[in-house]
Amino acid sequence: MLVGIGDDAAMVEMGSGNLLLTTDMLVEGVHFDPSAISPTDLGYKSIVVNVSDVAAVAGSPRYATVGLALPAETPSGWVIDLYRGMVEACGEYGLSIVGGDLSRSERIVISVTIAGEVPRGRALTRSGASPGEAVAVTGCLGAASGGLKVGSKDALSEWGRALSEAHARPVARVGEAQILAGSGASAMMDLSDGLSTDLHRLCAASGVGATIDLASLPICDQLEHLDVDPVDLALNGGEDYELLVAIPRDAVEAATAKLKEHFGVAFTVVGEFTEPIEVMADGRPLTPKGWDHFG
Amino acid sequence: MLVGIGDDAAMVEMGSGNLLLTTDMLVEGVHFDPSAISPTDLGYKSIVVNVSDVAAVAGSPRYATVGLALPAETPSGWVIDLYRGMVEACGEYGLSIVGGDLSRSERIVISVTIAGEVPRGRALTRSGASPGEAVAVTGCLGAASGGLKVGSKDALSEWGRALSEAHARPVARVGEAQILAGSGASAMMDLSDGLSTDLHRLCAASGVGATIDLASLPICDQLEHLDVDPVDLALNGGEDYELLVAIPRDAVEAATAKLKEHFGVAFTVVGEFTEPIEVMADGRPLTPKGWDHFG
Repeated sequence: MLVGIGDDAAMVEMGSGNLLLTTDMLVEGVHFDPSAISPTDLGYKSIVVNVSDVAAVAGSPRYATVGLALPAETPSGWVIDLYRGMVEACGEYGLSIVGGDLSRSERIVISVTIAGEVPRGRALTRSGASPGEAVAVTGCLGAASGGLKVGSKDALSEWGRALSEAHARPVARVGEAQILAGSGASAMMDLSDGLSTDLHRLCAASGVGATIDLASLPICDQLEHLDVDPVDLALNGGEDYELLVAIPRDAVEAATAKLKEHFGVAFTVVGEFTEPIEVMADGRPLTPKGWDHFG
Repeated sequence: MLVGIGDDAAMVEMGSGNLLLTTDMLVEGVHFDPSAISPTDLGYKSIVVNVSDVAAVAGSPRYATVGLALPAETPSGWVIDLYRGMVEACGEYGLSIVGGDLSRSERIVISVTIAGEVPRGRALTRSGASPGEAVAVTGCLGAASGGLKVGSKDALSEWGRALSEAHARPVARVGEAQILAGSGASAMMDLSDGLSTDLHRLCAASGVGATIDLASLPICDQLEHLDVDPVDLALNGGEDYELLVAIPRDAVEAATAKLKEHFGVAFTVVGEFTEPIEVMADGRPLTPKGWDHFG
């Protein structure tokens, strides 16, 4: 960083790759309930959801700006804890907060923009999937939305804590995405709004259809303790921030081995991309039931 | 632009300069009243206030991301007009909107981030002012805040329209800033919160004091029609987005001539930077009475 917070604009060095820019807002009452998430977790998460967008194109996050609108009565300790969570996430993912803006408002709004970098020719967009390629996902699905359903009596159990952690402290798959890009994957996005919704988006961007096999979904183990339909959470829950990937069948085995070796992360084929334009699950149309921002 | 809106992150080409990043939020009820500004003007202004931050370090704006939080009942025509104003400003200043985020909220929040570029070694920060250098400003001061005081009976007069326009459609001094950087200016910032507040900031960043001469302030002519103290508006009004500049005395004449020749814009010496640490006006301490975000 050459010029950081306090001047009119931050000035930073960039390498010779392409510049990536992504913005995500977290709005009180829409994306979070301040009585249900600690400010540190909220700060952490506000960085990671943006890092995940950079990861989803196989890039590396470098710099962040933070726009923060806060009620005048917000305790300064709350703001310090929020910032502490942001800095913690920045440390884990190797980026720096270089600027931002602070404003009053009635409700808390956190708007994070990340500038990242990707070597020229190495980015992976949503639009490269072809019929016949595998639909695959990293990790397991449903844990983040499961975290919202853990009752107070189970909050201290090992599985309850794992689900709550998945919701409050999501993981962005930065290294995994770069390995997948180097392993022949043809399209990628992060699962922020739920597989049933995001798969439609990837198919629309690529001009393909898809059919998935619900029995093959990698459902997170801890969901078995909840009185919910785990397939529903895995399909529609959202906020898992796992990667949704199109990859040729003959590249799956090597990619799976690399992800396991380097990150201990599962890579699961859940279906196949098809000719346009239907998106099916178990032979029936897959209804997008994930997060709809104006639903 | 290589990848634009619709994928996880925007991907853009950057040249060989340094990357500039700046974020500004506009919050309903704090920065604007939607019944008092058209959505087109609001969109235009939301871009220009960020462009002005890039200008203030002598950079060129390139790309913008827009985070938009809106009440569910916002008419789609309002959003289209907002976006039209943004696109108009982007066209004037040569940048593109490459991404963003959309969310529900109770009140409108517009968070714009701009990525810009500056040739290595050519950026001008707030921290380079030295004692003995001139305190100078571009253009005239007070018009933007004067625009808020134009009564309905004067709204159609030429001077009333000029003041309203100054408030709704500020001008960012992009080219002017680059000329000043090339003319020996040593420190610069944009006047967003009012000279009385922003001069303190520049002095603090540079570790200098300053003394200004109120009679020399370039007060906008149209303010004479208002029943206000024009010096108060010029000092404390804010939102003028003119440049506040530190420049050696012997560089003033050439810089003034170039700004007039290329842009028809005035450049006025209003005082002098001094040894630390007092900031004075007409021999008395200058009280910062401009915009205080948590005032």
